[in-house]
Amino acid sequence: MEQVSTNKSHGGAQSVWTHQSAETGTAMTFSVFVPDHAPGARMPVLWYLSGLTCTHANVTEKGEFRAACAEHGIIFVAPDTSPRGDDVPDDEGYDFGKGAGFYVDATQQPWARNFRMRSYIEREPPALIAEHFAMADVARQGITGHSMGGHGALTIALRNPGRFRSVSAFSPIVSPLSCPWGDKALTGYLGTDRATWREYDACALIADGARLPDLLVDQGDADGFLAEQLKTDLLTQACAEAGQPATIRMQPGYDHSYYFISSFMAEHVGWHAARLKG
Amino acid sequence: MEQVSTNKSHGGAQSVWTHQSAETGTAMTFSVFVPDHAPGARMPVLWYLSGLTCTHANVTEKGEFRAACAEHGIIFVAPDTSPRGDDVPDDEGYDFGKGAGFYVDATQQPWARNFRMRSYIEREPPALIAEHFAMADVARQGITGHSMGGHGALTIALRNPGRFRSVSAFSPIVSPLSCPWGDKALTGYLGTDRATWREYDACALIADGARLPDLLVDQGDADGFLAEQLKTDLLTQACAEAGQPATIRMQPGYDHSYYFISSFMAEHVGWHAARLKG
Repeated sequence: MEQVSTNKSHGGAQSVWTHQSAETGTAMTFSVFVPDHAPGARMPVLWYLSGLTCTHANVTEKGEFRAACAEHGIIFVAPDTSPRGDDVPDDEGYDFGKGAGFYVDATQQPWARNFRMRSYIEREPPALIAEHFAMADVARQGITGHSMGGHGALTIALRNPGRFRSVSAFSPIVSPLSCPWGDKALTGYLGTDRATWREYDACALIADGARLPDLLVDQGDADGFLAEQLKTDLLTQACAEAGQPATIRMQPGYDHSYYFISSFMAEHVGWHAARLKG
Repeated sequence: MEQVSTNKSHGGAQSVWTHQSAETGTAMTFSVFVPDHAPGARMPVLWYLSGLTCTHANVTEKGEFRAACAEHGIIFVAPDTSPRGDDVPDDEGYDFGKGAGFYVDATQQPWARNFRMRSYIEREPPALIAEHFAMADVARQGITGHSMGGHGALTIALRNPGRFRSVSAFSPIVSPLSCPWGDKALTGYLGTDRATWREYDACALIADGARLPDLLVDQGDADGFLAEQLKTDLLTQACAEAGQPATIRMQPGYDHSYYFISSFMAEHVGWHAARLKG
């Protein structure tokens, strides 16, 4: 693991790292914010998964999480959204291929070799954080994300019960089975047998019996992707039918951008902190 | 004046505007954050001038000012750093020409027609804000900026006594007369008669008798430009010799980036708010 950069910010260290991934067969990049802390102190870890077209850099630059993480003593880790590089297959669309890994393990060609973002996120950065960041208490982890990354956060948490004490999302894709983005990406990565998609669909996982202790979702009602792609109501309905505790809030006037995410980031970090440090 | 975009953020509206500038002879862009406010309420205006290579977008995306501006009820306006366009002369360096207007009115060719950033900043956006933003109380204005923009904020405030109730800067160029950036840019824009540079040099303006009610500067001591270009000590010395009240703080471990600026932005906004709303 090599450090690309480090900058002091809000009293702590915002750093960027690269490492060779066995899962994706490529170099991968992620960012880590470590708040100022007493020697020997150990802090919980909050994972943030990004949305379509993003790298680690978008939230690192625009997410406005550092003040809240410094206040609460939370380490914030932001991975990339797909493998990268000239040898990695791609698609012309912004919503498939590079920048659009959808946090699945692809089974179809030419994607299967590199597009293993499920296994990557579930295994590699967590092991690296545990190994290289002595102040990270990996027994206390939370996860959040935006849009495609909100889908990633919800499905990874639902498939790994007990691993995350806190789960939230900003404008998540709640059901790839039920929207054009999901249809295109999961057909491409997983093929046409939609039964194989269910472990990558938060609503299906909940209907099939997976549970979280709790759940926070914020969604802007002026988000241009809400009606066709995000369909927050499907998650509200799935949680209600399954008895899954959930706080799902429509935020009036907000869109899909980081101007929205940054508006509610401090509140999400505080929500995670209450569960990670309580 | 045309609206390029508007996004709800932190309860308010983050918008971007373009207009045709008489001073620069080009289209110019600036961003405006208007916090949520009661009907008929009027709020003070804080100007932010950006540094070398930046447009309005850098601070708008990375500055982390909106939460503090929403809390205090402060309108935040961020202009561009130079004229833009294919017809505007440029230089190969990042530190002269486009993105590097240095907030001067150029007298030398080929710059004199377009590079009128002093008159532009002093006249045009203030008139547009007063005309188009009814909630802006232009009797209460503050000004801040970063690096070249910190130089701009200090010199514009020093030349316009009484106009700004509050003045601060992040890692400002305190004396273009005394550093390579200033030497290159002011020779190019103003020519070799260094007497004409003094009205664009904060230290010289203070030595020549200009005064501000007060002054806040934050400077990172790990800033790679500190020793050769920024030379904060010259400002400390000029203020001490002239009896100019000033709070000039060295911040240990911080560099020149927005990771530094965003760390102290809320404190600066609060400092301005105390003087603009007191």
